[in-house]
Amino acid sequence: MRCSVVAVGTELLLGQIVDTNSAWLGEQLAAAGIDSLYQAKVGDNLARIVATLRATLADADAVIICGGLGPTHDDITREAIAEVMGVELELNDEVALVIEQMFTARGRRMPQNNLRQAMVPRGARIIGQRRGTAPGLICQVGEKVVYAVPGVPFEMFEMFERAILPDLLARGGGASTIKSRVLRTWGDSESGLNERLVGVINELEKVGNPTLAFLASGWEGINVRLTAKAHSVEEAEQLLAIWEAKVRDQVGEIIFGVDQQTMESVVLDMLRQKNLTLGVAESVTGGLVAGRLTAVAGASDVFRGGVVSYASEVKFDVLSVSRGPVVSEKAAQEMAVGARKVLQSDIGLALTGVAGPDEQDSIKVGTLCVGVALADGSTKAVTFHLPTGREQMRQLSVISALNYLRQELRAK
Amino acid sequence: MRCSVVAVGTELLLGQIVDTNSAWLGEQLAAAGIDSLYQAKVGDNLARIVATLRATLADADAVIICGGLGPTHDDITREAIAEVMGVELELNDEVALVIEQMFTARGRRMPQNNLRQAMVPRGARIIGQRRGTAPGLICQVGEKVVYAVPGVPFEMFEMFERAILPDLLARGGGASTIKSRVLRTWGDSESGLNERLVGVINELEKVGNPTLAFLASGWEGINVRLTAKAHSVEEAEQLLAIWEAKVRDQVGEIIFGVDQQTMESVVLDMLRQKNLTLGVAESVTGGLVAGRLTAVAGASDVFRGGVVSYASEVKFDVLSVSRGPVVSEKAAQEMAVGARKVLQSDIGLALTGVAGPDEQDSIKVGTLCVGVALADGSTKAVTFHLPTGREQMRQLSVISALNYLRQELRAK
Repeated sequence: MRCSVVAVGTELLLGQIVDTNSAWLGEQLAAAGIDSLYQAKVGDNLARIVATLRATLADADAVIICGGLGPTHDDITREAIAEVMGVELELNDEVALVIEQMFTARGRRMPQNNLRQAMVPRGARIIGQRRGTAPGLICQVGEKVVYAVPGVPFEMFEMFERAILPDLLARGGGASTIKSRVLRTWGDSESGLNERLVGVINELEKVGNPTLAFLASGWEGINVRLTAKAHSVEEAEQLLAIWEAKVRDQVGEIIFGVDQQTMESVVLDMLRQKNLTLGVAESVTGGLVAGRLTAVAGASDVFRGGVVSYASEVKFDVLSVSRGPVVSEKAAQEMAVGARKVLQSDIGLALTGVAGPDEQDSIKVGTLCVGVALADGSTKAVTFHLPTGREQMRQLSVISALNYLRQELRAK
Repeated sequence: MRCSVVAVGTELLLGQIVDTNSAWLGEQLAAAGIDSLYQAKVGDNLARIVATLRATLADADAVIICGGLGPTHDDITREAIAEVMGVELELNDEVALVIEQMFTARGRRMPQNNLRQAMVPRGARIIGQRRGTAPGLICQVGEKVVYAVPGVPFEMFEMFERAILPDLLARGGGASTIKSRVLRTWGDSESGLNERLVGVINELEKVGNPTLAFLASGWEGINVRLTAKAHSVEEAEQLLAIWEAKVRDQVGEIIFGVDQQTMESVVLDMLRQKNLTLGVAESVTGGLVAGRLTAVAGASDVFRGGVVSYASEVKFDVLSVSRGPVVSEKAAQEMAVGARKVLQSDIGLALTGVAGPDEQDSIKVGTLCVGVALADGSTKAVTFHLPTGREQMRQLSVISALNYLRQELRAK
């Protein structure tokens, strides 16, 4: 199966919006074993949309077209598809009724132009709208198919998973279910992971299902994604469980989470399970660790707060750090102890380092000292030498420190 | 002039990287009055790159192709262009020398495959490489032109501005210089700005130069971009100055910065100018305000630090807030006073609010109270009702609070 992607919208060509939909679709299609050879962006121009649809249909089995399904006069994807199909648009009463009910439910009057969204190329199948007012469309064009979905990402995601992927899989004639599991790792490079998993990868290549892919996740480490095809969800889950275990046998200690878990959610969950509270003291990261922990709803039952001791005097006066070098393991430990005391938490976590651009007291840019003060009164510290670049160094500091705390919590 | 964009790389089709280059180019081309009708992504496949180049050249005057200029075997953009031009590749000695010198300067041995980057289609002009090892190319194809640039954004940006844009403008036969100025606003909607600037916009439409565009900047407000075409940099700057003044006449009070300035850099600069230091106390934003301020290199001469008082007891015990409701203007003012005292700063800024998902003590999600304690001992506070969604509410809180402080500093 080959499936191309066309993103519609003059705002995309003008760079007012970055087209992230196509990348997301490319990733989903690849995981399902469907080739995406070509992706295009085209403006709100009927002739050009029609030409692009014809060109992409010529060398693909399917085309997903995103955007241009809204209610305004420049939303003309429906018209373009009808022209490619060689049919008329007609009002679909059921779709119209759903749109009207959506407005009624929100207590709002429906502007008449919303009924444009109920105009459907004759013969097209409807992907019922759930999150927005525009339905998706499944449009047969000879032996091939055009899927139309709204450009709003969260509407598009839902329709792709609910209707398009199953339809593509059915047309492919193979397995009817695809399930992925993402194992999130921190602490090794892609080539390092590849080396450690070479046995598993070779074994997988022989059986061909599931597949394994490495996905860089920016400052968040490397994700190992397993994707299984099967004839039922249960069968897919079983396959994933077997191969997840094999991957964990090799690199289990650097897997910090699965799927939607983040380093911060995992650390908060561990603390919650152990009935421990946390306070942080930050210098180099200036509040980013606290900011990430509090991004998780419900952090308040575990996270007490933080002290951003950016100026040295704040370290001395508020956290009772002894006067002297402030980028050292000793200072980090004292900061952690200070955080525990000032914030009345069970655990203290502290970060001090040099983000640059200039070195500080002859300590190199990229140096990070992390201190942990534990509930039993003991302290620990470690020094990292991180890549430079102020933003990069700070972001890597956040995840390095949280991972260090995670390891300490696991060891206890 | 019409200029299409082709992004090359299988990793783009697989969604491993989001193609932000095309959006950036689209924005730059639009600002220069050059139409971008079509943008495409294609994998590392010679036949498909050639086909895509031919198809895009058919209905554009110029094509910018990004990526595939590196040293490895799957970097085949050079080969594709040579095929479209109908010429051979040949080694360019000058380019080869520069690459060798780059390795020597870094004290590294040059892997031989790097010389692939010195292979150039016969007749192509070189855009000398400055940031990376691969040069750009200007390749005449009949009446039309193909520009090749590396896919690494910061290499591409530099070559576009230095060589491609001037070449495009020269081919267009019009003005030789394009300059933009971005006026960054916070506090009004795009339609509100449009209404207030309707006089300026009408006047501009008559003269046609500069142009004015509104660019939404996510949680950072709306940017008003003026773009002037002229025959010299001085002439362009003069035009921009005249029209910037007219825009400021209408909406000056909500313009917080120009071009690369950010809300945090502006606030830090104002404090520095007034020789004042800042301390913050954060609850709802959990460290994000401090995190943003410290993202600015050199913040340390103004920013003392922060207290993330997430748990109520930290507000009472560390910041000496009186016991009672913690999301109120009174609490925000007390937090600001506490921050000033604990952190020994001239100014205290405090945020307390409800990010959700649930309301807190019957206070609605989206409520933000900001308190400021000034150097003269006086305090002020304000309440915002922000859109909900935990991440959105928190990010809008950061910029709302910083803007409030900016206004207070300006008034003093």
